[in-house]
Amino acid sequence: MEGGAERRSPGLCAAVLPAGGCGERLGGSTPKQFCPVLGRPLISHTLEAFERVSWIQDIIVVVALESLDLMKAIIQKYGHKRITVVKAGETRHRSIFNGLKVFSEECFAGTAIQKPEVVIIHDAVRPFVDEDFLLKMATSAKLYGAAGAIRPLVSTVIASTSDGYLDYSLERAKHRASEMPQAFQFDVIYQAYQQCTDYDLDFGTECLHLALQYSNTKAKLIEGPPDLWKVTYKRDLYAAESVIKERISDDLCIVTNTTEESIQFGVLLHEKLHLHFNVKGVSSNLFENHLENIFHEKCYSFICINVQESEFEETHKLIDLLQTIYVCSSYPLVIVSVSYDECNSRSNKLSKIQTLAKDARKSNILVYGLLINSHKDNKQCHCVCEGLTAAAATLSLSLVIYA
Amino acid sequence: MEGGAERRSPGLCAAVLPAGGCGERLGGSTPKQFCPVLGRPLISHTLEAFERVSWIQDIIVVVALESLDLMKAIIQKYGHKRITVVKAGETRHRSIFNGLKVFSEECFAGTAIQKPEVVIIHDAVRPFVDEDFLLKMATSAKLYGAAGAIRPLVSTVIASTSDGYLDYSLERAKHRASEMPQAFQFDVIYQAYQQCTDYDLDFGTECLHLALQYSNTKAKLIEGPPDLWKVTYKRDLYAAESVIKERISDDLCIVTNTTEESIQFGVLLHEKLHLHFNVKGVSSNLFENHLENIFHEKCYSFICINVQESEFEETHKLIDLLQTIYVCSSYPLVIVSVSYDECNSRSNKLSKIQTLAKDARKSNILVYGLLINSHKDNKQCHCVCEGLTAAAATLSLSLVIYA
Repeated sequence: MEGGAERRSPGLCAAVLPAGGCGERLGGSTPKQFCPVLGRPLISHTLEAFERVSWIQDIIVVVALESLDLMKAIIQKYGHKRITVVKAGETRHRSIFNGLKVFSEECFAGTAIQKPEVVIIHDAVRPFVDEDFLLKMATSAKLYGAAGAIRPLVSTVIASTSDGYLDYSLERAKHRASEMPQAFQFDVIYQAYQQCTDYDLDFGTECLHLALQYSNTKAKLIEGPPDLWKVTYKRDLYAAESVIKERISDDLCIVTNTTEESIQFGVLLHEKLHLHFNVKGVSSNLFENHLENIFHEKCYSFICINVQESEFEETHKLIDLLQTIYVCSSYPLVIVSVSYDECNSRSNKLSKIQTLAKDARKSNILVYGLLINSHKDNKQCHCVCEGLTAAAATLSLSLVIYA
Repeated sequence: MEGGAERRSPGLCAAVLPAGGCGERLGGSTPKQFCPVLGRPLISHTLEAFERVSWIQDIIVVVALESLDLMKAIIQKYGHKRITVVKAGETRHRSIFNGLKVFSEECFAGTAIQKPEVVIIHDAVRPFVDEDFLLKMATSAKLYGAAGAIRPLVSTVIASTSDGYLDYSLERAKHRASEMPQAFQFDVIYQAYQQCTDYDLDFGTECLHLALQYSNTKAKLIEGPPDLWKVTYKRDLYAAESVIKERISDDLCIVTNTTEESIQFGVLLHEKLHLHFNVKGVSSNLFENHLENIFHEKCYSFICINVQESEFEETHKLIDLLQTIYVCSSYPLVIVSVSYDECNSRSNKLSKIQTLAKDARKSNILVYGLLINSHKDNKQCHCVCEGLTAAAATLSLSLVIYA
């Protein structure tokens, strides 16, 4: 919803995402790129960030042999497009090289894949990269041959003697951490990989270094935002969740249907909630174009009121509508689906809202279910307020998501 | 509950914790050391980690002038001991120097504070440091004069030319990130601070460098655990929460009172829950010594069943007992307090459990309230299972904590 990157394309552009790591630092058995973040594999968040960028034609994902099937299943489940999966090599550099070979004529002669002018290399475990920054990198690469994202050092860097004592410390202000993404003219980086030594391929860590040494290209360094950090440890998965949650809108829109009961309840809720939340209005015009207008102005989170007899019909309709007008979502939308709790149908309702939520999540819509007692008085509002306060705590602290 | 550090003390030892930072990288108005992590200021977690170590005599906390009152309030609220609060200087080095001056004879002649043999310097924003590692650092400092914690570099470090291009990249394997804690013979580091230049005090970042340059002492470098990382960005606060949650026990102990109703319910719960959780047993002997025995063997989380008429009496008693036998807690204990939901008393109960939880948190006990319907059949168990599944999701994903 923020001002997008200018629509000028940096020319034919592709991306290579190494994702062959086995995640030993994470301490779990699942490599970190496949670990769930808000219920979706980390790599799927990263792929989504690249798919949003219309001027990136091909996205090459490089994964270990044993993860090929998992990767294909993820691509199918979340409907990722423009992805080619390639087998990883034994080291990071060998994996990236495998990814780049897709564009060599020998390899894919006759397929739809074209050799790009610029290639962006990015880690699958850095999900928070936006179009503006990718454009800046690609444009710089086109101009200078190579470009790399940097960040200030958080810790001082030191060198150790061979017997484990301090040798010297580097002045922190003069050095930078080299992060991802990096971007290159395709020929610059491909030639570097073709010419570098086996030692480089086995022990090197820095693509910018290869471009410098083998293609005589000094990369332009560009300071990136802090969210570019690499998900390395298990705790980083929680940090990644928190970053997504921070991007969820605090502005609430209450959605009712056109029945009097529903509208009355919506108005009552508005009165109660506006003391605690940024409630932007009650929309009973779900099936006219009102909501679409609201939505195009700003990003909202929604409280959707379902009438007593319905089977979450209103929530269903809201999800359908949002899926139509909100095609490629950069951050999740949140819907709190409020419905009445009739004692005898509780577990039935729970299972329905869970199914609904599971489905909506594929479009990056998070559905929370809130059951309230069906007494028609102020108490139900109080109850919804409490539930919402809980859900709000969730949005910043995380909670039970029915999916 | 894990094997503690050997009880040999490294001699008279003190700690200086710089906490004067204003947290501009966090993007909030509250400096990060004062931000809540599981409801308790980050710095309070760090202080607790040092208080647990009996051989550290004095803990000096260095805070900005404007945070002095806040710091004193935190010390009082959480009952921290052996703490001296000192005013920060304008830079990190000046703050640490201020902290060290506490031990100089001119400053505190006649007080109880003694000049230590070894001083540990540690950031207030690194809450996860354990006694074993502190002992290793202090012992090395005693032996070699200085010791510093290091970690492998996560990113390659590069140097930039003055016009923003890649100059060179450092070989990642040959360099290390210098982390905290560091430990020094007091005279080594104090002398270094006394002799260093204003330029060092204003622009330097590395105590090990001062010890090398001004006291001719090469620090011994010791690889630290990953949890030593520095809470720098807002996302790190969530990461810190996740680290604490990981340390909460997965082993459940069901606690009932001695009434038949309560015991029956406990047994029923055990049957239902053992499929999903590590349930270690039902204890109805809360007021005999049984629980104390269980507890000394291993760390548990608790489900405490309150009978219908009670006002969380059972939970109260469990908290009292745990406070007695579990004096200085390194990680939080969790109690899920189950009670019956009578429609007319719900908000009354909510407010009571909130008060209880708020109080228990001071002793690092997290209380979750779970209200269930009071139908005496299997359904209530099903309901508790659902609630607990939610609470369990919480423990790894975070949820609404009533406090």
